[in-house]
Amino acid sequence: MIKLGIVGGTGYTGAELLRLLARHPQARVSVLTSRQEAGKRADALFPHLRGHTDVVFSAPDADALAACDAVFFATPHGTAMNLAPALVERGVRVIDLSADFRLRDTAAYKQWYQHDHACPELLQESVYGLPEMNRDAIRKARVVGAPGCYPTAVQLGFAPLLEAKVIDANALIADCKSGVSGAGREVKLGSMFGEAADSFKAYGVPGHRHLPEIEQGLRLAANGAVGLTFVPHLTPMIRGIHATLYARLLKPDVDVQALFEQRFRNEAFVDVMPPGAHPETRSVRASNVCRIAVHRPRGGEVVVVLAVIDNLVKGAAGQALQCFNLMFGLDETLALDTPPLAP
Amino acid sequence: MIKLGIVGGTGYTGAELLRLLARHPQARVSVLTSRQEAGKRADALFPHLRGHTDVVFSAPDADALAACDAVFFATPHGTAMNLAPALVERGVRVIDLSADFRLRDTAAYKQWYQHDHACPELLQESVYGLPEMNRDAIRKARVVGAPGCYPTAVQLGFAPLLEAKVIDANALIADCKSGVSGAGREVKLGSMFGEAADSFKAYGVPGHRHLPEIEQGLRLAANGAVGLTFVPHLTPMIRGIHATLYARLLKPDVDVQALFEQRFRNEAFVDVMPPGAHPETRSVRASNVCRIAVHRPRGGEVVVVLAVIDNLVKGAAGQALQCFNLMFGLDETLALDTPPLAP
Amino acid sequence: MIKLGIVGGTGYTGAELLRLLARHPQARVSVLTSRQEAGKRADALFPHLRGHTDVVFSAPDADALAACDAVFFATPHGTAMNLAPALVERGVRVIDLSADFRLRDTAAYKQWYQHDHACPELLQESVYGLPEMNRDAIRKARVVGAPGCYPTAVQLGFAPLLEAKVIDANALIADCKSGVSGAGREVKLGSMFGEAADSFKAYGVPGHRHLPEIEQGLRLAANGAVGLTFVPHLTPMIRGIHATLYARLLKPDVDVQALFEQRFRNEAFVDVMPPGAHPETRSVRASNVCRIAVHRPRGGEVVVVLAVIDNLVKGAAGQALQCFNLMFGLDETLALDTPPLAP
Amino acid sequence: MIKLGIVGGTGYTGAELLRLLARHPQARVSVLTSRQEAGKRADALFPHLRGHTDVVFSAPDADALAACDAVFFATPHGTAMNLAPALVERGVRVIDLSADFRLRDTAAYKQWYQHDHACPELLQESVYGLPEMNRDAIRKARVVGAPGCYPTAVQLGFAPLLEAKVIDANALIADCKSGVSGAGREVKLGSMFGEAADSFKAYGVPGHRHLPEIEQGLRLAANGAVGLTFVPHLTPMIRGIHATLYARLLKPDVDVQALFEQRFRNEAFVDVMPPGAHPETRSVRASNVCRIAVHRPRGGEVVVVLAVIDNLVKGAAGQALQCFNLMFGLDETLALDTPPLAP
Repeated sequence: MIKLGIVGGTGYTGAELLRLLARHPQARVSVLTSRQEAGKRADALFPHLRGHTDVVFSAPDADALAACDAVFFATPHGTAMNLAPALVERGVRVIDLSADFRLRDTAAYKQWYQHDHACPELLQESVYGLPEMNRDAIRKARVVGAPGCYPTAVQLGFAPLLEAKVIDANALIADCKSGVSGAGREVKLGSMFGEAADSFKAYGVPGHRHLPEIEQGLRLAANGAVGLTFVPHLTPMIRGIHATLYARLLKPDVDVQALFEQRFRNEAFVDVMPPGAHPETRSVRASNVCRIAVHRPRGGEVVVVLAVIDNLVKGAAGQALQCFNLMFGLDETLALDTPPLAP
Repeated sequence: MIKLGIVGGTGYTGAELLRLLARHPQARVSVLTSRQEAGKRADALFPHLRGHTDVVFSAPDADALAACDAVFFATPHGTAMNLAPALVERGVRVIDLSADFRLRDTAAYKQWYQHDHACPELLQESVYGLPEMNRDAIRKARVVGAPGCYPTAVQLGFAPLLEAKVIDANALIADCKSGVSGAGREVKLGSMFGEAADSFKAYGVPGHRHLPEIEQGLRLAANGAVGLTFVPHLTPMIRGIHATLYARLLKPDVDVQALFEQRFRNEAFVDVMPPGAHPETRSVRASNVCRIAVHRPRGGEVVVVLAVIDNLVKGAAGQALQCFNLMFGLDETLALDTPPLAP
Repeated sequence: MIKLGIVGGTGYTGAELLRLLARHPQARVSVLTSRQEAGKRADALFPHLRGHTDVVFSAPDADALAACDAVFFATPHGTAMNLAPALVERGVRVIDLSADFRLRDTAAYKQWYQHDHACPELLQESVYGLPEMNRDAIRKARVVGAPGCYPTAVQLGFAPLLEAKVIDANALIADCKSGVSGAGREVKLGSMFGEAADSFKAYGVPGHRHLPEIEQGLRLAANGAVGLTFVPHLTPMIRGIHATLYARLLKPDVDVQALFEQRFRNEAFVDVMPPGAHPETRSVRASNVCRIAVHRPRGGEVVVVLAVIDNLVKGAAGQALQCFNLMFGLDETLALDTPPLAP
Repeated sequence: MIKLGIVGGTGYTGAELLRLLARHPQARVSVLTSRQEAGKRADALFPHLRGHTDVVFSAPDADALAACDAVFFATPHGTAMNLAPALVERGVRVIDLSADFRLRDTAAYKQWYQHDHACPELLQESVYGLPEMNRDAIRKARVVGAPGCYPTAVQLGFAPLLEAKVIDANALIADCKSGVSGAGREVKLGSMFGEAADSFKAYGVPGHRHLPEIEQGLRLAANGAVGLTFVPHLTPMIRGIHATLYARLLKPDVDVQALFEQRFRNEAFVDVMPPGAHPETRSVRASNVCRIAVHRPRGGEVVVVLAVIDNLVKGAAGQALQCFNLMFGLDETLALDTPPLAP
């Protein structure tokens, strides 16, 4: 059994890791840290896990974590970059679900997160954990920075078009909608039921922290500069991201459907839907799948890509687990093959 | 008291007309038709109206309707165009909430609604009921075609930019999100709670009936051709439309905030919010107001307009009532001045 | 114009008072206090009120409040009882929406709220603000303690049966369901969308602060001791309380429908629905009405009462306003006659 | 591989069977019938199952079904009782999720379902599929009638108390709340998002079809007559049933917590929560578990039981699958051991 640690297990991504790992045949959570909940059973905080885990929260302890084979960070930004170097040095492989190992550019990191990066060398070595873009590097990585939820949906949706250089990369639009769990489990006014239910709004239009991460990924896919307008919205649902992506085709005779099918034909977690489809977020609820449909309204030169994921799975815990499976030479789909939940 | 008739009062727009008119000091619903519910009190079907109306459904009757001063059609398309000519001939003014008097072009009507228009002459005379674009014509109209919900939000949001010719009219994008009541009160699978709750999806990407109506309005605002990509989405909320509009600025030094404030400074039902704002649909719930914010992300050349309305009020019954007030020389805000409901 | 003050205007009940008072023809909010938001416009915090109020938050100031004719307290418990005595002394009439003036018994107050009552004399003079039980006393009151939301629904539902002494008062059951706004606007984990949406649970089964208030009211109605089991539940909706009340009939031949109709025949805000009805919470959304239906399943000796209110209106701000209208000799329904909002 | 047939696979319970069976290691769906959808892939109707099933709808065919080892009926009442006899005769074991094999009493069946029972002999032989009450009989059954959703929650919640004869069986109250999916996938007005969202109501108070089924089960548990008041409510959530059960203790010194723990100590799918707990429906979402908490408010003689299930799993498809596992000598938890989904 592979021994796992989870640092910061009281949030939604931590709970989701526990839920998914409960079905993993080759790994077991042996350390789960929370300063605040130390001594409490995880299933006392998360009653849905009663019967599926016996793990108990403990205060963070360097030796206990170092005794793990791999450690997941399900913490706010700023924690993993301080703890990861010592763990890596002691042979632990690290998968960070926060923002600390996503941006290659430390200046951008500082600009958006307001503090210096604590371990720029390890950052340079670390690997961006989007398997569909980066599988081989993830396999060998000592530190993986798992992507954000919006960046996952937007990159998967634009990648085939950018890689094939069939769209104008300078005028990309990503109109994205997220369920409320995307804002995490910390209490905040905007995430209250009374504030978010039965209403819809955009937020962060002037600038959102996921923007530099998305642009970084799109530049790699495009192998060049990109121009992106990214507008996130808050949707009255628990889980789910729906990215509606717009671009102008440079080559009007390209078969975009075939392009997507070809690009993802070997991917277990990307489902290119039939022409004319409109994927719903619930069709991926609780699962690691990204479903994508591609349209050319009225046969014009604008291509519209619809991509849906579960923000807590493919957008966080599931993707981290997918990376873990790769890093340890396991079947990439272990513990990630349960059907989505609908209705 | 002005005598009103409502044809087809069993849907959401019919019920909403009854709710709003209950507070109108100068008009009274004297005829409310429904073949199916004839003989039943309206408040038996709509218990929230108990104590606010005594009207009883009756089978449609030409003479009863002709005895009204104005008749609202809250019917599916295809009904108003058959009944309106006789009513107009008998001096009744008609406000149609269906699609029958929205498209000037009878060929487009036939293409999208699959049948010929029954009264092309009256259609030519009729007036498109968007007061912020068309107030004077509405005042004198005998027949008003009240706009659809998406078209209202999109036209109000793009109008200042198109009229001022500061954007590229050939590459407009309208990413729109609607509450489920936009699909009406008829039972259909996609509107079921079990299907629409806690999920989000696009629909009609290849083509939606509101597209030609929106384009018609934008062409008038632009005084020229436009190119529009319109993607509607279904959102798990009851009421509300959020239009997120994208365009490329041709004149980067234009003050878009001032442009919007100036354009709507005398409008009772358009609220241009302060710079940086993100209007929520609930901020207009139950009201006739359209709230708009305008952004230039990172100061770039893409302008993003956020416009929200209540699809059943400013997107249907409220706008129809606003037209009615204009047609009868009343204060435009009569019965439309109640504050929105939040939370 | 009657000058009003609202202490603690940043919560849902404060915002709801502003919404309702925006339509009051004879009263105007001149002071709105919040230490934290002092200097900010109310409509900056509550954008749905843009265009309906110009009031600005100010830090609490004794003289400013004393210059009002009436002051509403929309604060957590413990505030009103400290400020009310000085205001009353200066001739201001006080309507408290918190728990400070609900319980006659200071020992019970201390038991449930963990601190001594600050003004037991004023408490004795104060009047419980449930007009349907207490109208005349409210008219003359200097201090009114407006009822809690659960107590309003439960008392109105049981009153006719207890007053008529037709049920066993020792075995009452009140199974109540509340929307999430009942927990207020302060951020707390249990009120988060991610926690409360798409789920249902009971809470406070061992004991809830509304229990002694309900029992106090039921004892008065019964003119004797009562035995009550009260179980509140959290429902994934914004507004609304549904009380399902169970009692055993002592007199099986009583016409319970007539009893309710008779008891409330002159009440503007209690709607006894026809036999067989099942009131929905949305049928009173945004309104001050309590709708009630009464059943005897299979004609047996168990009577089931269904009572619905909007917790923020009849359960809080609306009821306070109803009391205000009574206290100032106004029409009881002023600013409270807008139809409910559905769907 | 055990060959399975599902008759009527287009509803929520049919889809849920497919979802659960996708993970069953020893059974495979080989026939899935629907007259209307014949020829269509199941995952075209239920896109969340893409990648998890290849089964195609076929028109009902007696020989195809007879070639199965077991057939599930996920049909409206009235179908299974007509088809089951021939299947059983040909050696197929039948698990009916409809009401046809629930009521022992054919007169009661006729009263509530308005038609005669088609196979009273097979009905007498059939077994009520609540494993926690009836495990051994299920193992040997040729025909199992799987319980309704409300009956499952109510019976499990009352059983320990009735079996131990510690409560007054003549005055039971079951106040139950259901998610909207309990009404199935057929389109109907009351299940529309616009009707059911953000609202709460009771229904069927005069009488509900699940009442005789519940009473039948409670009589067996009590080994005597029972008196039950059952009030179902519609809750704005997709899945979940919350039963709040009330009874009067005859023996005030009984340790009800121990009673429940003892009664269910060997049950894989009943979780008796610690004292003071309030189970949420989401804590069993997507799972076959029933979580129960038992309270005595203020230590009195009223016992309050809180029981939650997922109506589509333990209340339908999961329970049917649990019965199937028993009938075929398999581990009872096969394909039913995935953790619940929260948030």
